[in-house]
Amino acid sequence: MAVCTMSYTHLPATHQPRLRRSNAAPASQQVVDNPQAETTTRKVTRWAESLSHHLHLHVEPPSSHAGGQNFTRDIWREYDEKLSSPVMSPKEDISQRWKEIQGFSDWEGLLEPLHPWLRREIVKYGEFTQATYDAFDFDSFSEYHGSWKYNKHKLFDKLGLTKHGYKTTKYIYAMSHIELPHWIERSHVADAWSRDSNWMGYVAVSDDEETRRIGRRDIVVAWRGTVVPCEWFENFQSKLEPIRKGESKVEHGFLSIYTSKSDSTRYNKSSASEQVMREVMRLVNFYKEKGEEVSLTITGHSLGGALAMLNAYEAGSTIPDLPITVISFGAPRVGNFAFKDELDKLGVKTLRIVTKQDWVPRMPGLVFNEALQVFDEITGTLEWVYTHVGTELKLDVCSSPYLKKGMNFSGIHNLETYLHLVDGYLSSKVPFRFEARRDVALVNKSSDMIVDELRIPHCWYQSANKGLVCDDHGRWVRPKREPDDVPSPTIEAHNHDLAVELQAYDVNVNGLLSCIKL
Amino acid sequence: MAVCTMSYTHLPATHQPRLRRSNAAPASQQVVDNPQAETTTRKVTRWAESLSHHLHLHVEPPSSHAGGQNFTRDIWREYDEKLSSPVMSPKEDISQRWKEIQGFSDWEGLLEPLHPWLRREIVKYGEFTQATYDAFDFDSFSEYHGSWKYNKHKLFDKLGLTKHGYKTTKYIYAMSHIELPHWIERSHVADAWSRDSNWMGYVAVSDDEETRRIGRRDIVVAWRGTVVPCEWFENFQSKLEPIRKGESKVEHGFLSIYTSKSDSTRYNKSSASEQVMREVMRLVNFYKEKGEEVSLTITGHSLGGALAMLNAYEAGSTIPDLPITVISFGAPRVGNFAFKDELDKLGVKTLRIVTKQDWVPRMPGLVFNEALQVFDEITGTLEWVYTHVGTELKLDVCSSPYLKKGMNFSGIHNLETYLHLVDGYLSSKVPFRFEARRDVALVNKSSDMIVDELRIPHCWYQSANKGLVCDDHGRWVRPKREPDDVPSPTIEAHNHDLAVELQAYDVNVNGLLSCIKL
Repeated sequence: MAVCTMSYTHLPATHQPRLRRSNAAPASQQVVDNPQAETTTRKVTRWAESLSHHLHLHVEPPSSHAGGQNFTRDIWREYDEKLSSPVMSPKEDISQRWKEIQGFSDWEGLLEPLHPWLRREIVKYGEFTQATYDAFDFDSFSEYHGSWKYNKHKLFDKLGLTKHGYKTTKYIYAMSHIELPHWIERSHVADAWSRDSNWMGYVAVSDDEETRRIGRRDIVVAWRGTVVPCEWFENFQSKLEPIRKGESKVEHGFLSIYTSKSDSTRYNKSSASEQVMREVMRLVNFYKEKGEEVSLTITGHSLGGALAMLNAYEAGSTIPDLPITVISFGAPRVGNFAFKDELDKLGVKTLRIVTKQDWVPRMPGLVFNEALQVFDEITGTLEWVYTHVGTELKLDVCSSPYLKKGMNFSGIHNLETYLHLVDGYLSSKVPFRFEARRDVALVNKSSDMIVDELRIPHCWYQSANKGLVCDDHGRWVRPKREPDDVPSPTIEAHNHDLAVELQAYDVNVNGLLSCIKL
Repeated sequence: MAVCTMSYTHLPATHQPRLRRSNAAPASQQVVDNPQAETTTRKVTRWAESLSHHLHLHVEPPSSHAGGQNFTRDIWREYDEKLSSPVMSPKEDISQRWKEIQGFSDWEGLLEPLHPWLRREIVKYGEFTQATYDAFDFDSFSEYHGSWKYNKHKLFDKLGLTKHGYKTTKYIYAMSHIELPHWIERSHVADAWSRDSNWMGYVAVSDDEETRRIGRRDIVVAWRGTVVPCEWFENFQSKLEPIRKGESKVEHGFLSIYTSKSDSTRYNKSSASEQVMREVMRLVNFYKEKGEEVSLTITGHSLGGALAMLNAYEAGSTIPDLPITVISFGAPRVGNFAFKDELDKLGVKTLRIVTKQDWVPRMPGLVFNEALQVFDEITGTLEWVYTHVGTELKLDVCSSPYLKKGMNFSGIHNLETYLHLVDGYLSSKVPFRFEARRDVALVNKSSDMIVDELRIPHCWYQSANKGLVCDDHGRWVRPKREPDDVPSPTIEAHNHDLAVELQAYDVNVNGLLSCIKL
């Protein structure tokens, strides 16, 4: 199918993509391969290429062949035009087609080209994940280092995410019994909020208005990843461990973070797994009892993407008839073939968004991975081989004219880079969308990925004077936090109960109001 | 003279230093050497030591022998106490003794121990110099990179320096015809405010209240230094060039920055020298015509200290009967012996504040310097040998219990480290002053020098989101500057004329008011 004839037959006319002629590749290059048409011979050839590629540990550097590289002046004008336009695309009512967008049909026909409604949802869930970084306390001198900066009632407001129409109901904490490099942020100070745990994510739920727009009550779990990626995942190479009694095995570091708990801690007397499952089940029961249709969407970046898979596996095994979707960004492999098969059986739908130049999705299992599947009959078992699951959406740093093309591994792996690339993605064969509206400047929040011409400072996401303020004596001090911004296991438990009560109250009042209206 | 009997005979009782007994060194170590008592033999021995030291290029590392190193818990308590006290010592009326404090008697009897009135004045001038860093636009993507962030009417207000009672009257710009490494900050952007010049300092003058307190109208010139010190000064090794017709020679890079100009530039149609001298002469004439006593204090850090010397030389040669004092921090050597002799003849008084562990004051002339003076009769001439001038006040990083003791060259050279050490200095033989009130946190503004126990973030002096703000569209953009915050040669010239008029008006009104009062 040539690009020029590519269209969304199911979309209103306003969504037909506007292509810049100057950037369009020759039609001969624009044929989208149909994977179904591949012969077995072709598969074997591909496998041989893949093995050779892996054994040489060769990673393709960002190339400069992609369209849109030589248009610096155009980019500047484009960017300037963008500056006077809103950052959000209009919100569409997707209630009639939400199951398709959540991957019930494995996103068939929605990825090449990428359906704008799906793109919008991916960015929404990505921004929920980004919130776990933006609200994380990275200050190693803070007594709250490794925790959050804003309590759950303020989170979306502080980060400008109330536009998505969700409310945070619970924060999740994790620890690990295994010594894992660079996964946990520990405070230097003696009176730290916790010695063992990190804030690892949260549970949120769609409000009434968003629920109407998306056709069901959507429960979201967002998992934070790690900041230093490669070294970390290298260390997990081939440490598969059984997840339950069957043949399913998963990476033991991920499993440890998801399941560790200790009575001697403040925040992990219950594990991340127990915390998240209790909250998800509470919300599912609450809304199902009201007769609502409910979905669970689990999202995460990097390590967070791996935790999302474990979470989906557990939710799928525990809660019957719950549509579960994972939207992961730059996530590593998590388990073996049996794990993948079980997830498929449980009906968990996974959209795995990766970037061609990102190393992390090649880990663990850089050499021994799903490419070995063709040897299944020879080797007899793939029990100890890692595999990816679900459907892949592959992005390319080179597709964006706004990004530098160097080997900046952490910049390429950065979640904001992913969100920028999703926003500009139409299909693997055409250039970055001219209409992409997401703020390009966000990419450089904590990286140096944007071309210098746009003059966006590097790593600009920072607080004034690192949070120090000048007191009445003229001294620069770290201000005391408001009581409700201090992590506290008891207060959080109390707030939680309160939230449940208030929610019940809301339902009653709303019910009463609708009766009165009738 | 043992420390226990050391006192300020000329000070009120409240100024007697409070010593912590626990930190006091044994009396045997506390004898302050009297330099006058040294014999010639001793001088030769010292020179031999010095030469050996220099030829091996050995630089003494920060040692741990100084008092106050093992009192982490005390320090924390001390710091905690400080947090509830004001940062400023009370302002004393120094009008009767200002000439002594400005160095008319070469600070004899004021340095060991350091007189508190002098300490306060040193810190004041140091803070004026610090303002040239704090207000500098370091953002290489800004079109004003290399210029200032606040116009001269706002400078002291924005930086909390109005307390000193001075008003800025002129900004000084500099360029250089010689290619010098790392001295100039050049904007990356095409429409930069200037391609050639950097904001290099300013002229300010004491207001009426401060003038009464300090006994004369004080004109201040503050010169900015460079951020990357050592490599830079190494490159200037032995490039002395004649400053005028005589034997005086100075480092050619410093001279180039001070004297370069070009008609093709926006900000250096006149040189830094011409800009500063015109303004100083204007102010001197203005206040002398009113019958006021006037002084000129020139201050600078690092390269700025060198420019201060050149400025003092020129002012001393040009303006008769003007008391001129230089207060420099971490300044390199500037010229040869003839230059030093001329400065002495001109009556320029220099208080050169250095830190034992700082490399920059050893440059240029690491090997060939004033230590060779004993060989004068043998070598015949010291024309090509660098020498320091004036009176030295030597600080020691190891004296402060708040500072790390590692080989952090840029942290040691940092002006805020100097100001902290001056604030805590009593004499070279006793520990850091317990009563030092200056905010310790300031040291870490752009370094990592404070011990971790105090939990002061590293390099914390930063603006929120590097100056980006979220606009109405939700996009992060660099806000447009207010018109009066945009560097402009014409506006600055206009403001300058206006300032002269306003000042004249002020004088008239004040004169009128005093007439009415009479």
